[in-house]
Amino acid sequence: MSFSKLFTPYQINSMTLPNRLVLPAMVTRLSGEDGFVNQDITDRYVRFAKGGVGLIVLEAMAVHSAKSGPLLRICGDEFKPGLTELAKKIHDTGDSKAVPQIIHFLKIARSGWRQKIEDLSIADIQLITHQYGQAAVRARECGYDGVEMHMAHAYTLSSFLSKRNKRPDLYGGKSLDNRMRLPLQVIKKVREMAGNDFPIGVRFLGEECIKGGYTTEESAIIALKFAQSGADYISLSAGGKFEDAVHKEGEVLYPYTGYSGDRCMPPMEYPDGYNLHMAEASRRMLRRHGFDTPVVATGKIPSPEFAEEVLQSDRADLIGMARALLADPDLPNKARSGNSDKIVKCIYWNICKALDENFHQVVCGLWPKDEIQAPYSEDTEPPRWEPPPAPLLEKEGEFENPRLSKAGAGGGWPLSVLVRSGNIRLNWKSATDNEAVMGYEIWRSDDGGNTFSHIYSITTSMWTDHLAAAGISYQYYIRAYDLAGNKSAPSNIVRADLPIEVEIPSEVKTVIARPSFMKAPPMSAKEQTVSAEIAQT
Amino acid sequence: MSFSKLFTPYQINSMTLPNRLVLPAMVTRLSGEDGFVNQDITDRYVRFAKGGVGLIVLEAMAVHSAKSGPLLRICGDEFKPGLTELAKKIHDTGDSKAVPQIIHFLKIARSGWRQKIEDLSIADIQLITHQYGQAAVRARECGYDGVEMHMAHAYTLSSFLSKRNKRPDLYGGKSLDNRMRLPLQVIKKVREMAGNDFPIGVRFLGEECIKGGYTTEESAIIALKFAQSGADYISLSAGGKFEDAVHKEGEVLYPYTGYSGDRCMPPMEYPDGYNLHMAEASRRMLRRHGFDTPVVATGKIPSPEFAEEVLQSDRADLIGMARALLADPDLPNKARSGNSDKIVKCIYWNICKALDENFHQVVCGLWPKDEIQAPYSEDTEPPRWEPPPAPLLEKEGEFENPRLSKAGAGGGWPLSVLVRSGNIRLNWKSATDNEAVMGYEIWRSDDGGNTFSHIYSITTSMWTDHLAAAGISYQYYIRAYDLAGNKSAPSNIVRADLPIEVEIPSEVKTVIARPSFMKAPPMSAKEQTVSAEIAQT
Repeated sequence: MSFSKLFTPYQINSMTLPNRLVLPAMVTRLSGEDGFVNQDITDRYVRFAKGGVGLIVLEAMAVHSAKSGPLLRICGDEFKPGLTELAKKIHDTGDSKAVPQIIHFLKIARSGWRQKIEDLSIADIQLITHQYGQAAVRARECGYDGVEMHMAHAYTLSSFLSKRNKRPDLYGGKSLDNRMRLPLQVIKKVREMAGNDFPIGVRFLGEECIKGGYTTEESAIIALKFAQSGADYISLSAGGKFEDAVHKEGEVLYPYTGYSGDRCMPPMEYPDGYNLHMAEASRRMLRRHGFDTPVVATGKIPSPEFAEEVLQSDRADLIGMARALLADPDLPNKARSGNSDKIVKCIYWNICKALDENFHQVVCGLWPKDEIQAPYSEDTEPPRWEPPPAPLLEKEGEFENPRLSKAGAGGGWPLSVLVRSGNIRLNWKSATDNEAVMGYEIWRSDDGGNTFSHIYSITTSMWTDHLAAAGISYQYYIRAYDLAGNKSAPSNIVRADLPIEVEIPSEVKTVIARPSFMKAPPMSAKEQTVSAEIAQT
Repeated sequence: MSFSKLFTPYQINSMTLPNRLVLPAMVTRLSGEDGFVNQDITDRYVRFAKGGVGLIVLEAMAVHSAKSGPLLRICGDEFKPGLTELAKKIHDTGDSKAVPQIIHFLKIARSGWRQKIEDLSIADIQLITHQYGQAAVRARECGYDGVEMHMAHAYTLSSFLSKRNKRPDLYGGKSLDNRMRLPLQVIKKVREMAGNDFPIGVRFLGEECIKGGYTTEESAIIALKFAQSGADYISLSAGGKFEDAVHKEGEVLYPYTGYSGDRCMPPMEYPDGYNLHMAEASRRMLRRHGFDTPVVATGKIPSPEFAEEVLQSDRADLIGMARALLADPDLPNKARSGNSDKIVKCIYWNICKALDENFHQVVCGLWPKDEIQAPYSEDTEPPRWEPPPAPLLEKEGEFENPRLSKAGAGGGWPLSVLVRSGNIRLNWKSATDNEAVMGYEIWRSDDGGNTFSHIYSITTSMWTDHLAAAGISYQYYIRAYDLAGNKSAPSNIVRADLPIEVEIPSEVKTVIARPSFMKAPPMSAKEQTVSAEIAQT
């Protein structure tokens, strides 16, 4: 695929991005509670810069000194030396631009209590405006290329924008203008204090994804107002609200535990580009009113090819990838150099999200065990099996669209398959590599082998397909990949067919009410065997 | 617009629909708790038939005799005479086809307790299968053209399909095949008992819209499995789950009170066709596997023109409209006869939903006060104002795309405008009609009068725009319409500009911590005046 748009430079105010790929702000939990930049944080962002992403938005850093878990701070001059050093290291590594995301949040307690925007006085509100302005000035002084204001998810400015903003005064209530008052005052203040030539972006929600929350109807107007008020770019997220979060006894509320949390970071069962319509709606509104303000689309955009299509179809101007770049920071460079096939693909299993939710450092589940940074290797030798899988030798080079008629069921080398209790389980022998095998891609066809799709990647040598349906014939192959993302040739192909239906118990003709002693029937001998097998694994 | 697809017949098994418009099952609360067909129910469905819709899916009727509020029943032969009479009356009225939706639900209590599918024994499950089969047989015997199995929302079969199905046995757990077992057994039983030539459809969720619920990834497989198992059509809904429902003290749980309830019946703030991607995903899967099974798309499809576009772009085969047909049952006939302009347009304000939620008979908020059925009139004389609005005479005939430069702010005849506290309030003088004025359409432009969109309809003569944003110049006109939907010429056009920003309190320079005595500042003289004005109205 040729990338006629994705790898062209893009100008935002005084900043020229080398390409259209954006790393959206992503929590790392790598900093201490002191808020200072440390080595792990530095390594994380230098690694992204090394991979060639166009714009790095650094994880949210607080504009104020309120208590929190591990979180970077930009709320005082004491944080400037570390932030300056980080900016310099990013810039020294490559041509990525870097902007910090700056955040204000309210208080939360382990009891489940949380401070609400209704509790803020006018003086509190004025202070927030000023704190954002000062943070932006510090960002500039530290050598960053711009600043991004966090107005998304469960945080202060997002709560003002929210359709569930319950303030009764000029900063809330039923009028969208009132809800936008503080966010617009913040933009105005940041612009005044940081200067007209300093790129400022806004990240906010395209949809709140909670009962009574706003949708694209309003987010498009919000985008327009932000552009009118001088925002240089718009970046759209979704959900991530406190309102539907699940409170765990004794823990502070985590705003990504409810449905809106799923929508914020769509897990694997969501279609790719699930939130794209939000970017489209805002962009359409902006263009209709004569604004060229770029729109960053995010939300399970899995590949440079998908990203290019989004740009080609004018649905967004810039492409944000958080989890995909965490899985492989080298994605930009690999795609640009024609090596898309070497990308280690995110599977949106959301291990990263679960780690954050459980207060652990955020890593990718596809990285080698115990590593806290993505591996890097310039090796070019792919993993392999010895002896090589037989079908491969016969069909070499055709694996992009294999039409192998000799698909075998059951055992095979190195991949074998077992059908159990309505699930399809794959097992395989480990491949070998001159450096190290990093993982295995699993490819599946549901149409008799005409088309195969990558459906999962895993670091172990076993996987169960829980989404297989009886009556459909599935075929699978795997590919091993190493630390550099070099992919082995495909394994043998296995076929699996679930039995159409477990026998239906004989027809009930006369039962009207259920006798109270009737419970689930005892397991059959076969079921018992299967259960025992599963219990052993 | 020409409707080259919407009004062409469509064959489903032995049933030929006269056109592609479907009335999805919609609760009415018009029946008694006895479950028998009564006059109000009959009037409701005869009214739809009179309007020319292709397929009427009658409101869910229970396949069992469990306690519930007002709900039709098809769980015993005693209900057959009433159901037979209803089918006959629908068929005598026009060429609409009619199928009952048949439902099984579990027990719920005012305490908030609800029975779960985990509580069902195998015998219970077998009974459900049999009850569905018997209900389908009764539907056929009563003269219906087919039957639709309710497998959506918060009800029994939907809970089996759910990704949150927690049963540990062959009817649940992690395997999609297990979750589909009962639904497929029901389809098989219904097919066996009702006959191969009896059209059977399935309504289920394209997305559950709850945390951890399934999305289109799985609903497409479910659709395929249903088709493979003999379903004649697939109808997709979304959400409407118990899992995120809000429990009101002392009331039984209502499954449309949470976010998933919004997604089920997207209110006005959602974009049109918001759930269309679900129908598309299922349809694509069906076609890819060689199935022609028609897919019914629903969810805020507002107009015949929009419906035609959906069909033309192959996103669905049939178009379901519930609220739009409630607002105007004559929508099909009006569109087919070239009178789309006379359609009384649903505004998705969800009065109908609120009535159901509060245990009232379901009517449309646009109908004349106290009516429980949609009005019908063959009158052709539109409402008017005396004297006619001035700009109209000058620009007659141009109102489809008015470019009136003389847009006036403030007062006018009959429409005037007032800007108050960040909202724009419209007031107008009532129009007159030879029969009765039914309501007023409000049209708005946000681009200086180049394009106007219908944004609301209302039966009173006052409306406030809560979605207006400062800095955008808005223009408005209204049109009165009568019981037959005849529209008056547009009123005068008014313009409203919100002041860009209420003055920001002077900058806070030194505040570090908020003094505890500091509260919201006193209102300015202007704010006091505005508050007083609002208090009076």
